[in-house]
Parts: sequence; C-alpha cells; structure tokens
Amino acid sequence: MGEFDLIRRYFSPPVLHTRLAGGDDAALIVPSSRDTELALTTDLLVAGQHFFMEMEPERLGYKAAAVNLSDIAAMGAQPRWALLGLVLPTMDEPWVEAFSRGFRQSLASYQVDWIGGDTTAGPMALAVTMVGEVPQGQALRRSGACVGDDIWVSGTLGDAALGLDYRLGRCQLPEVACKLALERFELPVPRVELGMALRGVAHSAIDLSDGLLADLDHLVTASRVGAVLEVGCLPVSLAQPGTWRDVEWCRRVLQGGEDYELCFTAEPCHRSGLSQLGAQLGVPLTRIGTVTAEPKQRLLRDPQGAEMSLAWRGFDHFQDIS
Amino acid sequence: MGEFDLIRRYFSPPVLHTRLAGGDDAALIVPSSRDTELALTTDLLVAGQHFFMEMEPERLGYKAAAVNLSDIAAMGAQPRWALLGLVLPTMDEPWVEAFSRGFRQSLASYQVDWIGGDTTAGPMALAVTMVGEVPQGQALRRSGACVGDDIWVSGTLGDAALGLDYRLGRCQLPEVACKLALERFELPVPRVELGMALRGVAHSAIDLSDGLLADLDHLVTASRVGAVLEVGCLPVSLAQPGTWRDVEWCRRVLQGGEDYELCFTAEPCHRSGLSQLGAQLGVPLTRIGTVTAEPKQRLLRDPQGAEMSLAWRGFDHFQDIS
Repeated sequence: MGEFDLIRRYFSPPVLHTRLAGGDDAALIVPSSRDTELALTTDLLVAGQHFFMEMEPERLGYKAAAVNLSDIAAMGAQPRWALLGLVLPTMDEPWVEAFSRGFRQSLASYQVDWIGGDTTAGPMALAVTMVGEVPQGQALRRSGACVGDDIWVSGTLGDAALGLDYRLGRCQLPEVACKLALERFELPVPRVELGMALRGVAHSAIDLSDGLLADLDHLVTASRVGAVLEVGCLPVSLAQPGTWRDVEWCRRVLQGGEDYELCFTAEPCHRSGLSQLGAQLGVPLTRIGTVTAEPKQRLLRDPQGAEMSLAWRGFDHFQDIS
Repeated sequence: MGEFDLIRRYFSPPVLHTRLAGGDDAALIVPSSRDTELALTTDLLVAGQHFFMEMEPERLGYKAAAVNLSDIAAMGAQPRWALLGLVLPTMDEPWVEAFSRGFRQSLASYQVDWIGGDTTAGPMALAVTMVGEVPQGQALRRSGACVGDDIWVSGTLGDAALGLDYRLGRCQLPEVACKLALERFELPVPRVELGMALRGVAHSAIDLSDGLLADLDHLVTASRVGAVLEVGCLPVSLAQPGTWRDVEWCRRVLQGGEDYELCFTAEPCHRSGLSQLGAQLGVPLTRIGTVTAEPKQRLLRDPQGAEMSLAWRGFDHFQDIS
C-alpha cells in the first residue's frame, strides 16, 4: 500500500466544521465568529525521547493529540482543528490504523476536526499542530499573574512521573496504583473545559508539561513576579508513595513532567467560586501558594515554614537526555 | 546554552501582525478581515530523506519555509503566519543561528510572522506549519478543473531534479547550469504573488512538489477529469541538458519533484490575460495541455502527436527511498 493510499484511508476522517480538509495543498477553515482570536501550538514527540518506541500505538495517538489539546486548554481556548505530521520508519498498516484511531478518539472528545497533515519515512517522530478559538482579549496568558494572586493547580501532581518510573523499572507498585500511574502517563486528560471556564477568572495559566517548579517558573518569570509554594498543600493521588520528606516524592511531584494539569493564578475573591467550579467539573482544584512582589523569589516551604531547596529549572531536552 | 535560552534567542523574532508570539502555551492571531478563510498546511522534512544532512543550514532554513509557502501559494492564499518544529541531534549554536536566519529571510519576503514552534533532541527533522488567508470562496482547489480548460505551468520544469542529480554525482554540468540547478533545488521561489493573482482566473491549482505527472494526476483525479499534455510545450531552462527524446530528460522534467512551480487550469478566454500576468510578475506562464472529459485519460503526446508512456504516479516516501 503506497503513501497516498495510506493517507487517504486513515488520514481523511469526516469533519464537522471545516471548509476543506485533506487532499489539497492546504486545509481551509473559517473562524466560528467575528470576534475570535485563534490560538496555535505545535508540539514535537520523538521516539525514545518523548515516548517509548514500543508504546501501544492507540495510546500514542491519543497522547499526541492530548498534549496539544492541553496547550490550547492552558490558553482558555476551545480546541477546533488539528494537523498531524507523522514520520515512520516503515509503513506498518496495523500500527497506523491503531495510532490514527487513538488520535481521532482524543480529538473527538472535544469535537476537534482533523484537517490534514503529512506522512513520510524516517526515524519515528510526530508533529502535531492544534488550533483553538477564544473570544478576543480573553485568552489566558502566562504573563498576567498579579501580586497577591493565589496559585492553583488542577488534579494531582506526580502521577505521570510515577508511571514513567514504573515503565523504566525504577519502582514497584500495587496493581491499582500501577494502573492509575500508567493511565496518567500514557492517557493524560487535557483540562479543556477547565481552561475555558477560567476565562475572566484566572489572571494567568500554564499547563504542566515540564514539571510544576519549572512551569511555574515560566509563568512567574513571564509575569515579572515571584512565588511562594506550600509543599504541604500539593495535591497527590493515592497512588503516590512517600511524603514530601522523600527525595523521590519531591522529584516526581515537584519536578516530574507530563501531568498536563493546569497551573493558574487568581485573586483570592475567587476562592469559593473556584472550589465550586472544581466540584462541578469533577476536577479537584487546589490552592498551593501565593504570587509575591519580588521577581526573583522562588520559595518552597515545608509544613513547618522552613525553606526547601529544589531546582526550579525546566527539563532540557538537549541536556537531560541523550 | 540550554534549550530555553536557545528558543528565546533565535526563535522569538519580531512580529508584524500577531497578537502573541512565542513564549506561551500557544500563539494568538486575529484574521485580518471578517470574510477571511484560513489555509493551513504542515510539511515534514527529514534529514537523508528530503535534504542532505550536510546541507548549508541557511539554505535549509530558507527551503523549509519556501516549500510551505508554496502550498499556501497553490491555494491562492496570502501566507501570514508560520510555526516551526525543529528536531536536532545536538545543540549546535552556529547551525541554529544560520538555519533560523534562512528561515526568517524566506518568511520576511512575504511579511510572514514566525509565531512559535518547538525544539527537541533527536534525529534531524523539521516540521513547518504555515497559515495563509484568502477571501471566502476564492481559494484555488485541486478539484475545480473543467473540461476544456488549458493546463498551465509557471517557470521551468526539471531544474530541481537536475540540481539533485548533480548533488548525487549523477551528472556533470557547466558552471552556470550547475549554479542555476542548485539554486532551484536548494532555494526554490514559492509563487506567492502568482497564486494570489490567479484568484478568480484559475479553476484549479496545485504546486509541483512530487513531479509534474504525479501532481497533475492528483489535480485531475480530484477534479474527475482527464488530461492531455504536449511534451513539446514543456518549459525548460537553458541548464537542462538533452531533449524530450532522452529518458533522463523525461525523468527530470516530467517526474522530477521539488520544482515548486504552480500547475493550474483556466478557461481559454484567459490566454492573453495570463500571458500579460506572467510578463508583469516576471514568471513565464506556459500552456502545456488540455483538460479532457474522460476521467481515466492521462495522455502525454510527443511533438508528432504520438503517445508517450510514462508513469503518472506520485513519489512515495516509503517505497522510493530507504
């Protein structure tokens, strides 16, 4: 089966709100309203770097879409259209079928149209571009955090890192914990509804892909403010072994990447509203710290008020692996 | 120098018409008018597959943008925004600097904003996403060709294939021919102004990336029509050795990819207007055939009217290399 046949068979799913999808030099879309801003993001996933070559293809397809949906969610935008670039060492039809099924399922949860892409031979890698819509001026940026804002996080932290540890044989886990950690690592749930609900409420937002400390550092740096975090407040799941006193716990919960939760800041007057919103969406929202006036401040406090020293730097794809 | 520093230094060029570029979870853009349609395309370029690993990085950056600009041109759209995904085996700062310079230059020729992207470690590959704008309903599609249309092509054919042959040591060339062929292969000029000028004139269009026969086959297949081509009419440059009687000439001119010219169809009443347009833009426009009613017809005629047999199939990145 040739490249063109393959593209036609699996990469031309039906679309809901697209003028022209697939099979031409470009796809054509029309924004859904006149006052819309478009949010665009592109993410690379390289085999051996961002995922295991032997990862189940349906899960990989799902995750490739989900991590880009998460970026759109962090802007408070509604995801609408996706493009997929797929580099594959060989044309393995069952693999492509399963991959595209997972990709499609992830998109379908949010009525996102898969409008085009490219396939070619080479070392396995994925390039997803996601386009969302948000009413003009309402996007959530990293740069909007204000002194005195509460710092919030959705869901639980460190589960994906636990799943990765398990996949790498670094830890053993009870069956239930194992299932939860692997699902969080391989099938992250992008917080799309939450992001949209935070319009007009959050001053700033970012999604957690590089780890809480690194991503929060991006946010407060962009906002030219500081941050104090309370380690005792950090939400963790029942699967997470250990406590904040353990080095490994801290590495997973504070520095572990790929949780794809939203970290955002909001004025204290929104506390009860946000608690209600979390309950309504079925997503725990937890206050974990405060935005401060000192732009260089990155303070992590233990439950006794003592300062903990942990690196707030980002995961570096050139220095930390390879 | 870390990943984040690198991204900040080279990948945050100034933008002209973008709400928010780089450094957030997504970029934000606003369409320039209310009746606009957006054209989106994404292209993968893999080292060893689409370009030589040792290709001069400034030229590679230029070409990566140009081939995507060409897709937007083929839709009759005005290119406006670009995203770049860059997979690099190591962080080589001079390489990244030169690459981004070429990429930026290519975009700057058409006032395209570079609004974001992603970088990571891995086997060298590029993923470019380009977004253009076109007034609603005016995009040029592959599917619009009508029986009786003239088939036109811009520029000359087969020069890029000649440049590739030279790079592969398959042929020797006089110095002037060599320079021309290599420039056409490594620095293709996307026909952006031409594409926009063809709105309301051409019934259909495609850019020539896979070779004339393959791409024209895509166009007439999408339009459910047939095609007759006159080999004696095909425009070639002075660099192109041989004649239509030579197998190698036919391979380069008819089947060679990467010319990034536009192939389009238009009613015969536009002949003089199109000749004037070509003169005005400084781009030769040549009539090379006719659209016919028989959907299966793919006829290539020599100057004596005899049928020539050549494969009209597309280049297959999985079957033809590796």
